[in-house]
Amino acid sequence: MTDTEKTARVIFMPSGLRGTAALGTTVLGAARALGVDIDSTCGGRAICGRCQITVSEGRFGREGVTSSAAHLTPPTEAEEKYARLRGLAAGRRLACQARILGDMVIDVPPESQIHRQVVRKQAEARDIAIDPLIRPLFVEVEKPELGDPSSDFARLSRALAEEWDIEGLRASPAVLSGLQEALREGDWRVTALVYQRDETADPELIGLRPGFDERLFGLAVDVGSTTIAAHLTDLHTGEVLAAGGVMNPQIRFGEDLMSRVSYAMMNEGGAAEMTQAVRAAINDLAREVSARAGIGVHDILDVALAGNPVMHHLLLGIDPSELGQAPFALAIGEALSPRAAGLGLELAPGARAYVLPCIAGHVGADAAAVVLAEAPHEREEMTLIVDVGTNAEIILGNRERVLACSSPTGPAFEGAQISSGQRAAPGAVERVRIDRETLAARYKVIGCDLWSDEEGFEEAVKDTGVTGICGSGIIEAVAEMFLAGIIDANGRFDAGLAETNPHVRARGRGFAWVLREGEPEIAVTQDDVRAIQLAKAALYAGARLLMDELGVESVERIRLAGAFGNHIDPLYAMILGLIPDCPLEAVTSAGNAAGTGARMALASSAARREIEEAVRRIEKIETAVEPRFQEHFVAAMAFPHATAPCPNLERKVALPKGREENHPGGKRRRRRGRGK
Amino acid sequence: MTDTEKTARVIFMPSGLRGTAALGTTVLGAARALGVDIDSTCGGRAICGRCQITVSEGRFGREGVTSSAAHLTPPTEAEEKYARLRGLAAGRRLACQARILGDMVIDVPPESQIHRQVVRKQAEARDIAIDPLIRPLFVEVEKPELGDPSSDFARLSRALAEEWDIEGLRASPAVLSGLQEALREGDWRVTALVYQRDETADPELIGLRPGFDERLFGLAVDVGSTTIAAHLTDLHTGEVLAAGGVMNPQIRFGEDLMSRVSYAMMNEGGAAEMTQAVRAAINDLAREVSARAGIGVHDILDVALAGNPVMHHLLLGIDPSELGQAPFALAIGEALSPRAAGLGLELAPGARAYVLPCIAGHVGADAAAVVLAEAPHEREEMTLIVDVGTNAEIILGNRERVLACSSPTGPAFEGAQISSGQRAAPGAVERVRIDRETLAARYKVIGCDLWSDEEGFEEAVKDTGVTGICGSGIIEAVAEMFLAGIIDANGRFDAGLAETNPHVRARGRGFAWVLREGEPEIAVTQDDVRAIQLAKAALYAGARLLMDELGVESVERIRLAGAFGNHIDPLYAMILGLIPDCPLEAVTSAGNAAGTGARMALASSAARREIEEAVRRIEKIETAVEPRFQEHFVAAMAFPHATAPCPNLERKVALPKGREENHPGGKRRRRRGRGK
Repeated sequence: MTDTEKTARVIFMPSGLRGTAALGTTVLGAARALGVDIDSTCGGRAICGRCQITVSEGRFGREGVTSSAAHLTPPTEAEEKYARLRGLAAGRRLACQARILGDMVIDVPPESQIHRQVVRKQAEARDIAIDPLIRPLFVEVEKPELGDPSSDFARLSRALAEEWDIEGLRASPAVLSGLQEALREGDWRVTALVYQRDETADPELIGLRPGFDERLFGLAVDVGSTTIAAHLTDLHTGEVLAAGGVMNPQIRFGEDLMSRVSYAMMNEGGAAEMTQAVRAAINDLAREVSARAGIGVHDILDVALAGNPVMHHLLLGIDPSELGQAPFALAIGEALSPRAAGLGLELAPGARAYVLPCIAGHVGADAAAVVLAEAPHEREEMTLIVDVGTNAEIILGNRERVLACSSPTGPAFEGAQISSGQRAAPGAVERVRIDRETLAARYKVIGCDLWSDEEGFEEAVKDTGVTGICGSGIIEAVAEMFLAGIIDANGRFDAGLAETNPHVRARGRGFAWVLREGEPEIAVTQDDVRAIQLAKAALYAGARLLMDELGVESVERIRLAGAFGNHIDPLYAMILGLIPDCPLEAVTSAGNAAGTGARMALASSAARREIEEAVRRIEKIETAVEPRFQEHFVAAMAFPHATAPCPNLERKVALPKGREENHPGGKRRRRRGRGK
Repeated sequence: MTDTEKTARVIFMPSGLRGTAALGTTVLGAARALGVDIDSTCGGRAICGRCQITVSEGRFGREGVTSSAAHLTPPTEAEEKYARLRGLAAGRRLACQARILGDMVIDVPPESQIHRQVVRKQAEARDIAIDPLIRPLFVEVEKPELGDPSSDFARLSRALAEEWDIEGLRASPAVLSGLQEALREGDWRVTALVYQRDETADPELIGLRPGFDERLFGLAVDVGSTTIAAHLTDLHTGEVLAAGGVMNPQIRFGEDLMSRVSYAMMNEGGAAEMTQAVRAAINDLAREVSARAGIGVHDILDVALAGNPVMHHLLLGIDPSELGQAPFALAIGEALSPRAAGLGLELAPGARAYVLPCIAGHVGADAAAVVLAEAPHEREEMTLIVDVGTNAEIILGNRERVLACSSPTGPAFEGAQISSGQRAAPGAVERVRIDRETLAARYKVIGCDLWSDEEGFEEAVKDTGVTGICGSGIIEAVAEMFLAGIIDANGRFDAGLAETNPHVRARGRGFAWVLREGEPEIAVTQDDVRAIQLAKAALYAGARLLMDELGVESVERIRLAGAFGNHIDPLYAMILGLIPDCPLEAVTSAGNAAGTGARMALASSAARREIEEAVRRIEKIETAVEPRFQEHFVAAMAFPHATAPCPNLERKVALPKGREENHPGGKRRRRRGRGK
């Protein structure tokens, strides 16, 4: 059919797109004509090296296409120069230089595709799609001439239209101010950084660099109430170039979220102060990670931001007072794509920002980032995702439905409002074991690899001291207290022990178990046990409520997100009844899922569309208006007995002799009966 | 044809749009369904009163439509309340309240149309179209509820979509920060200020006000090198509520444009200093005019900005150095619609800006504003528009073609670089007559209504003094010196007079004519005459060059724009040969055409499209590369003899006896012969 004198048949792999090309067409030209996904930023000048391809040798019978590298023109001078300067693997050719001389099958390796996947190492993690909203486009611009009144911007726009099909280019004054210098410095050869929010939006020039300079840097920021974490990312590869974190300086206005909301409510201009503080911290952090990666903060072109609703509002400059009172109305939850400068962020003059959507008034953009990273909406298995902070964000679902709610766990899981509690920091007790006979503690502290009963422990902790007990430590301590019979299933101390055991003591109107003597003494009191009971009941009740809603009795996977999820031992979470029954090996840490989600949104236009759509579809459950939440909450106050669904517990934790009566196995089953 | 039981035939005038409407439909609903241009900002709640109509009584034979006010439902309670509170003329009905009961002809008066024309008083001026890019839209928003996770913005967007068909609403963080307060203060009844750049752009929420508050204010700013003028405008009516002007504080960096460009070239950060200065001045001016109109500066929602290319660049934050050297490349000339905040302007938090397009490197956005106000591209007559500053912008054309150029007149016409010259200010000589026999001067100064030979003159000028001679004064002085024979057609002093006349004196290597003795002495020297000759030759040569390009020998209208055009006497402009021959009555002042153009662009989306299109189509002529410009320039140095084409001259100005030989009538004709 084809005129073999003048055209060749070409097939591009792995897409399988095929067609004919006039002999002499560049491979890149043929690829573009066929809609093949192949990268190039230099406009076919053998500079960027992104369009590398190989030719499959041999005869492809079914297609009738003979393929051979000999069906391409030999390397051009420019191509040889590229190979000399930057290296070109054997068999690789630059698609912009190689011209088609005969039928062939062309392989486009993954790194030459614009829309590529970055495979993450962690087995449970999904791949990150690379699909940035910013493209670096190299162009040669006509010089101005006396008698041609066109502006530099008009000539640049024309070059971008001709070489890259960019139509309707816009630019902000901040970017225009650097235009003339870049054009002249690059001798009219420049790399235009073109941002496009989505297909319907006009392309926007957000930067212009002299010469060929295709670097693309972005910053993913997770604004936590306590810590602000940033990942400086190469937008071409998704690779993290530098990461850093700082304390959220808003802490001086209030330790937890609600005290910050109160500060905003009680102080004229209080919200603005906190906005200013968080923006300044992000700017500091951006400078720090840039310096560490050896780039300038002005090289950062895009920033993706996630945070809980209060952090989200304060970052945007919105007073969060409404989030502190029913009905907890968000000012805005929809994703936003403002200029970074509009958020007070001092990055590249034209830098853009992306603020991830909030799910509901108590389930923020950080939870949305977790959803993006974990993608429950893409999975078959019924997955429960728990992100614990002052509130727990709970997400349950699979590809059919996804539900979300927030549960008021309070700050106990973070070590706050616990008598010996403290934030996770060097010196904090993070692991606890209790001798079933003596009720003495063995423990580990953050910053030291030794257990407290190992030789050299006291020497090793001399610098930090043993200063308190952090979230994971208090959970293990309470679970072990239960397993050791110090407290019963209702959380009540065994009063008799205070008379017989030196570690259990009367304290105020109740009792305390002393983990460590000295200054400070570290102990767990009756009030501490109650605080943990309230927190775990809230968490469990939230998960149960979503399970009721979905009509499921168990979940297939549990992912524990955030710092808490990273440090907590799933076994003890299950002993305490923080989470519903699930095979222990299916309970895993999701790591910094919010940070990962922010990075995904940073690097990918498709990821932004995905999370916006996912958030629209997530069914939001308000625990405060669900009567069953209260029922589940009350029922979940007691500690459960580990039963069949969790066989690991029997194996790993020996119950103390003579204390089995404290663990009524029926409790859990009774509670379950109330689910619908 | 129509089912007369259930529908009625309606005709809307003056559009003539017609159709049927179900009985019981509101007139507003029927109008919208038929695409009739009828205003409403309150969403049919009888609040705004913008949708007033009348019903034509009688039978319309040709249409077969009987019309009667009785074919409408009687006034509703809401309508009667409106009439009581705000008044409703006899026969007027609110289209949102009145429902159709029978066939009728409905008149939509001009003030009820969205796209209305404001007729300007000045006979020569075109009407201003009112077609603002911002609409105040009243809506009732659903309250948030526990269990409904939608954000306030989402519910506002939904209300705007349902009531006003606003889809895809966006908002910047600056506007979102005020959202919740406005909604609650207005008890969920708010006026949304929705901006739409053009049909393809997403609508943007740029402000939200509690309750019904449809006020729309904008600021039109003409950034001149010397003066910044601002008009605070009601965007509903185009009416100027307050006007003001301040000195451009950039003057401290250089009197004229080129010295400011030099300042930018010579000083690191110099351009940024000037940017900061002009923006601060605009902010001051905005505050001043707002206060005078009794509104807050934060009520200003849009600002239209015009200025010459150097002012344009500095306002945008662009270093103007390139405009100071060939090839005079603009960074950008295209119209821009940035946020006002992006230009450092402190208006409403969401305020927008519109920067008019520049025509070429020497023909700026101020000239574009003049074109918009004067609309040569809409006229049959061949019109010459001259706007004189340091450069003269010259525009020539009619509906077929429009040409533009800039000519380097230098600052002489502004009174600069003239020995006794000064800016137009109280105390400056602005009118000059010379007695043909005695060669003594009569003159007037700015700020005094008396001529110098009238009684009380010296008393009247005691406060200001007589301090110098401004642009219009020097033109009249030189013209009168020529007519009085003090100088000849080549601008040379009659040396003999220095010996016989007390007003003509030897001065340095040449002569001077003394207008006023004293401190300071005010005189016109040989160098001053040369400066005026150079300036007027440049102006005339530019106009001639465009006439050559268009192939015309004369023009039908001349419009003198700007402060210079406002003050200069067209007769003297013609005596000196500043402008080509034209019937004197066809030479008129265009007033502050640049300011008018800025106001038009402020108030009308259509005007913005019009000027952008007109600027694209204007043919730009670069005088520097046209050899004929030099020829015209040299030939235009001499003063012309007034001949037939300008009969007024003969009538109004008596030539001194015995001096006719100084006015060779052939000079002008010879020069004309060189045109193509």
